[in-house]
Amino acid sequence: MAEPSLARLSALFFGFLLLLATYSWVPGLHSGYLSGTGVRKTLGPDLKLRVDHSSAKPHHPLDPLTVQEIERVRAILLDHEPGFGSGSATIHSMALDEPDKKRVVKWKKGNRLPSRRAEVLALSSGQSHVIIVDLDSGRVVSDVVNPTSGYPILTMDDLIVASQVALKSIEFNRSVEARGVKLSDLVALPTFTGWFGPEEEGRRILKVQCFTSQDTPNYFMRPIEGLYATVDMDKLEVIKIVDKGMVPIPKAAGTEYRYNVQNKPVHMDRINPISIEQPEGPSFLVEDGHLVKWANWVFHVKADHRAGMIISQATVRDSETEKPNSQILMFTNVERTGEPRSVMYKGFPSELFVPYMDPGELWYYKSYLDAGEIGLGPAAMPLVPLNACPRNAYYIDGVFASPDGKAIVQPNMICLFERYAGDVSWRHSEILIPSADIRESRPKVTLVARMATSVGNYDYTFDWEFQTDGLIRVTVAASGMLMVKGTPYENVDDLGDKQDESGPLISENVIGVVHDHFITFHLDMDIDGPMNNSFDKVHPEKQRVPTGKSPRKSYLKVKKYVAKTEKDAQIKLSLYDPYEFHVVNPNRKSRLGNPAGYRIIPGGNAVSLLDHDDPPQIRGAFSNNQIWVTRYNRSEQFAGGVLVYQSHGDDTLQVWSDRDRSIENNDIVLWYTLGFHHIPCQEDYPVMPTVAASFELKPANFFESNPVIGVAPIFEKDLPVCRPFASS
Amino acid sequence: MAEPSLARLSALFFGFLLLLATYSWVPGLHSGYLSGTGVRKTLGPDLKLRVDHSSAKPHHPLDPLTVQEIERVRAILLDHEPGFGSGSATIHSMALDEPDKKRVVKWKKGNRLPSRRAEVLALSSGQSHVIIVDLDSGRVVSDVVNPTSGYPILTMDDLIVASQVALKSIEFNRSVEARGVKLSDLVALPTFTGWFGPEEEGRRILKVQCFTSQDTPNYFMRPIEGLYATVDMDKLEVIKIVDKGMVPIPKAAGTEYRYNVQNKPVHMDRINPISIEQPEGPSFLVEDGHLVKWANWVFHVKADHRAGMIISQATVRDSETEKPNSQILMFTNVERTGEPRSVMYKGFPSELFVPYMDPGELWYYKSYLDAGEIGLGPAAMPLVPLNACPRNAYYIDGVFASPDGKAIVQPNMICLFERYAGDVSWRHSEILIPSADIRESRPKVTLVARMATSVGNYDYTFDWEFQTDGLIRVTVAASGMLMVKGTPYENVDDLGDKQDESGPLISENVIGVVHDHFITFHLDMDIDGPMNNSFDKVHPEKQRVPTGKSPRKSYLKVKKYVAKTEKDAQIKLSLYDPYEFHVVNPNRKSRLGNPAGYRIIPGGNAVSLLDHDDPPQIRGAFSNNQIWVTRYNRSEQFAGGVLVYQSHGDDTLQVWSDRDRSIENNDIVLWYTLGFHHIPCQEDYPVMPTVAASFELKPANFFESNPVIGVAPIFEKDLPVCRPFASS
Repeated sequence: MAEPSLARLSALFFGFLLLLATYSWVPGLHSGYLSGTGVRKTLGPDLKLRVDHSSAKPHHPLDPLTVQEIERVRAILLDHEPGFGSGSATIHSMALDEPDKKRVVKWKKGNRLPSRRAEVLALSSGQSHVIIVDLDSGRVVSDVVNPTSGYPILTMDDLIVASQVALKSIEFNRSVEARGVKLSDLVALPTFTGWFGPEEEGRRILKVQCFTSQDTPNYFMRPIEGLYATVDMDKLEVIKIVDKGMVPIPKAAGTEYRYNVQNKPVHMDRINPISIEQPEGPSFLVEDGHLVKWANWVFHVKADHRAGMIISQATVRDSETEKPNSQILMFTNVERTGEPRSVMYKGFPSELFVPYMDPGELWYYKSYLDAGEIGLGPAAMPLVPLNACPRNAYYIDGVFASPDGKAIVQPNMICLFERYAGDVSWRHSEILIPSADIRESRPKVTLVARMATSVGNYDYTFDWEFQTDGLIRVTVAASGMLMVKGTPYENVDDLGDKQDESGPLISENVIGVVHDHFITFHLDMDIDGPMNNSFDKVHPEKQRVPTGKSPRKSYLKVKKYVAKTEKDAQIKLSLYDPYEFHVVNPNRKSRLGNPAGYRIIPGGNAVSLLDHDDPPQIRGAFSNNQIWVTRYNRSEQFAGGVLVYQSHGDDTLQVWSDRDRSIENNDIVLWYTLGFHHIPCQEDYPVMPTVAASFELKPANFFESNPVIGVAPIFEKDLPVCRPFASS
Repeated sequence: MAEPSLARLSALFFGFLLLLATYSWVPGLHSGYLSGTGVRKTLGPDLKLRVDHSSAKPHHPLDPLTVQEIERVRAILLDHEPGFGSGSATIHSMALDEPDKKRVVKWKKGNRLPSRRAEVLALSSGQSHVIIVDLDSGRVVSDVVNPTSGYPILTMDDLIVASQVALKSIEFNRSVEARGVKLSDLVALPTFTGWFGPEEEGRRILKVQCFTSQDTPNYFMRPIEGLYATVDMDKLEVIKIVDKGMVPIPKAAGTEYRYNVQNKPVHMDRINPISIEQPEGPSFLVEDGHLVKWANWVFHVKADHRAGMIISQATVRDSETEKPNSQILMFTNVERTGEPRSVMYKGFPSELFVPYMDPGELWYYKSYLDAGEIGLGPAAMPLVPLNACPRNAYYIDGVFASPDGKAIVQPNMICLFERYAGDVSWRHSEILIPSADIRESRPKVTLVARMATSVGNYDYTFDWEFQTDGLIRVTVAASGMLMVKGTPYENVDDLGDKQDESGPLISENVIGVVHDHFITFHLDMDIDGPMNNSFDKVHPEKQRVPTGKSPRKSYLKVKKYVAKTEKDAQIKLSLYDPYEFHVVNPNRKSRLGNPAGYRIIPGGNAVSLLDHDDPPQIRGAFSNNQIWVTRYNRSEQFAGGVLVYQSHGDDTLQVWSDRDRSIENNDIVLWYTLGFHHIPCQEDYPVMPTVAASFELKPANFFESNPVIGVAPIFEKDLPVCRPFASS
């Protein structure tokens, strides 16, 4: 029996994530890296770090933990529990424990930073720990054991170990080899097991499934169907092998996708080089590494282990705000200051839920909660300049902690760039006054903050796009590979009635298993401050006109309902009973008396159709509604709970919202779930064209009038002069 | 009493359209213009005509009527009915009567054009005529009188005449002046009257409402509320004046939007110049004025009086099509030809429906059908280079007929450009094979065909966007001005219970009346040819798993239903009962046996909530469903009917579909309705930020695999070198 090579052994990771090369983890590296910082090994010519992370300091209360801070947390933890040194205790995530919102809101540049704290999710002797470490005092201030069901986010070590355990099983290897797969081609992927009742309780388990990478880097299209091993992560043993017999392994031909080795002819006329050019450079500033200033916006952006990217304290300047000047007020004159006004305290993808639609023994458990089970941050590979983000993009690194508490730098994890796509922010052509020749049109230029994460086969891109008119658009774009299933069939005609079983045939011996994606965003809206926000449901209601009153028989009349409690704000969207949803500050009224507000505008969407008593849906219960509003509670950040791995669904947004707290004129959090049903087709093979979905946060009576009415059009004289590179 | 000036008198048009300056219609101009062509008078420095329209000839069976052809139709009509010369008969629209689809499909470049015919909608002695003129034989081949209820599309003359009639009424003028409005500031807008039963039958009527343009070009924000005159267009007399008494006229301050006279400070950091640059020029070709070739796409584009812009014969090259070569077939070898395959025969916005939500005497009738009542073409002002379309855009003119049959050129009505917004067409980062450092990402470059029409206050932009992966995205973007209502109130607190009457207060004395927009697209999909197309409803259905069969309790199973008849394809979208909708060619199967197809993917949408017996909804019945599929019938192009003005709704898509014809394995047409509810807010004043909605046509098992897998990434060496204009 061939021994799997070390390279192959270490190439073990979950079908929805993999961390290995990200961490460039090889034995002995820990002690060897510079200044305690591990940086991805092969940076490539396009990766230059802008920041010297070994000496970086926090500048803002929300800045993520620095390399030095992570090292200090490690030292404090070692003191608290020696198991962190011996390996019997492991760090599963470490992130800034953000200061109280009130303190952050009051903080101004130049002030001393509020005390820095870290929240550590750890595992020690099979118990989950939520530990708060105070960096100023050097003490562990709390250590809560098993606050809910579930285990902390998985580590890369968990994935490697699970694969190693499976591959040590003679029975498992025999099953692989019986299929004609050489162990040197084997890719063993530990996958998350979900939670399906008492049977699986009381121990951490992972399920290892297999692919072959023979003749292709796209092993995802070459599943070794019909086989998996369940690994007990406490006892480090295989507790079950499911082998349902041989299924043909799909061919390698046609699966290659790398440009350098591509030989597939494309019948397409050449597209000339095209780019977004800004010869004077981009218009935004990044202060102290995380504070972004652009046009009328200021916000804080940072990388996060779990959410991937977090936007905080988004404020927009209001050109019409009138600041009473005591000296001139008497003359009814006021100063227009362009006051920055609070829109959103914090926004991020809080949890993902990806249930697959195959109840069979080999697939039933596949229903992933990516953010809480493995984290979007470590899977965010460096963005490729020019291709993942356009020219003039600015890149920000992520800094995380490894399982033993050392710092790891994830370079170029976030990019910022200005987008111009040829669209208009507003336009009007007026034909009434011919002599004036009014044809007004203003190009739409926006600022995008982007993070792309490759959770194994799927690549998700998250964009936060800021417009000068006050609108924020959040877009999730999905690409990458399908998680496919092997099948004996090569043609639809052979399938007969079976063709609808778990998905369509998308290549010979390849079934694209039907699945859903739901992404729930935490949107802590703070319209003109954290307090005094309410949630208004604005409802166009069909009215029947009494006979004889009007030639019309019906019309829509808009009524407004203020949500009193959380259950009033459990919203199922409907085309036939539409509402607008506004977060308003009833204490901040416009000149006309309208409360300042922001609307959430759903785009195309899909909802989970699974039964509410189905275990995956219990754990993904945050997808039961498309919109929720909860009372602000600093512990309620992650919609699937703090401890998600094998969780029972006892700490979800559904549970919190069912407490039905008052949400009127309070500090409230808006949640929005965006979704896709994915019924695969041939075009998704061997790599999927990008599919995107968006929602918008749009000012509604927040400004006194259209805030961009005075913005300038583009003039020829302002535009660059360009020539092809070759001729320069 | 001051006499309204000629300039003001001629500045009369409908609140949802105006034609005047577009046509540059001044007395005596008809005989004076060059080669029979009227061109917009003030072209401005940015308008250059690429085509010598006086000598232009048709090159393709679908090319629009040329100036010479329009002149010839006019001559033939004069011969047919002398009333066209004397003015007792008027031409309301003239367009190419497209040849039979079969002839067009067979036609190849170099072949003789099929005989050229024109369809003329005319009015003669109060009767509607649909006239077909054959240009080759020089004969009128048919002249059908009053085929349905309704009158032809309005002309500019209709609008001018209606205003003139109203302004000749002493009573009407007295009502205006009683409000303190000088007639020299008066803007009298004829508006479409809809149809509300027998009372309004048997005569053409228009309703004239008023605004003041005192101190602003944005008279739309200064309505003279409470007053309108109904004009009988046959007798040319005012038949009714409704005067509900004085309402304060909203102030002019804050309504200006022109950049040149703007003095509103905007507190916003400067955005540096930005543009989409292609130093080697754009990659598309426009052959013979209308045939666009780009990347893997070929399509025909033309301006249209009614639809604004029509896309025809969209075909996409298929890199994987295997053309059996008789010589090599025996060796199972095949030639990959990049065969162009038919996707869509014809696509265009077929009708718009814009009902306002105020049943009062002054507003009840406002429920516009813009395409059929006035036409999107003449209201499409020339696009402004750099601002309405980006650099390197290519512009195409429209050619229409005037009411007396002379040709009019509408310059720069359509633009074509390549879009790049920093997004990806697909991506994958692979961490399994560290040594390979796989981070693949392909920029998304698309081709856009754009038309923007200013139907009075509203500006609609229509984009057809073509992607290299075979996807077509259609976007409607709305901007411009609201149609607002005067009110005595200046503050929400004064309104009390009345605040919900017909819309929110958006400025002092200004109510933004709630309204809807529905745009119904005609999408004549011809997947691999006109015949043998079917409509598949692909339905993920929730299955309950029998207890004990699986740890899962539910999952989705996809079933497919083929729509047999038109009623099977009257689709109301639902989040909770979702379907995919595919137009497929069951006779064209993929290698795997899947039928070649295209999906229609709705984006965010809204539906009409009006009662089905409400007169506006009867006429706008095409909005009763979001998707319809009908049997192809060349006369069923415009969803609101051929004759829409004052139509009774007896010739709509609903009526056609209710015939319930067979649509399986046939030549079929897909219809999609996209909608917005618009509850105005302060930010919509004095001009609205753009709101956009889209739908997509996406290949589904049309290609054997992802068609862009082999497309190249961007390399630094291919990109331009730019410098600021000033330094050049």
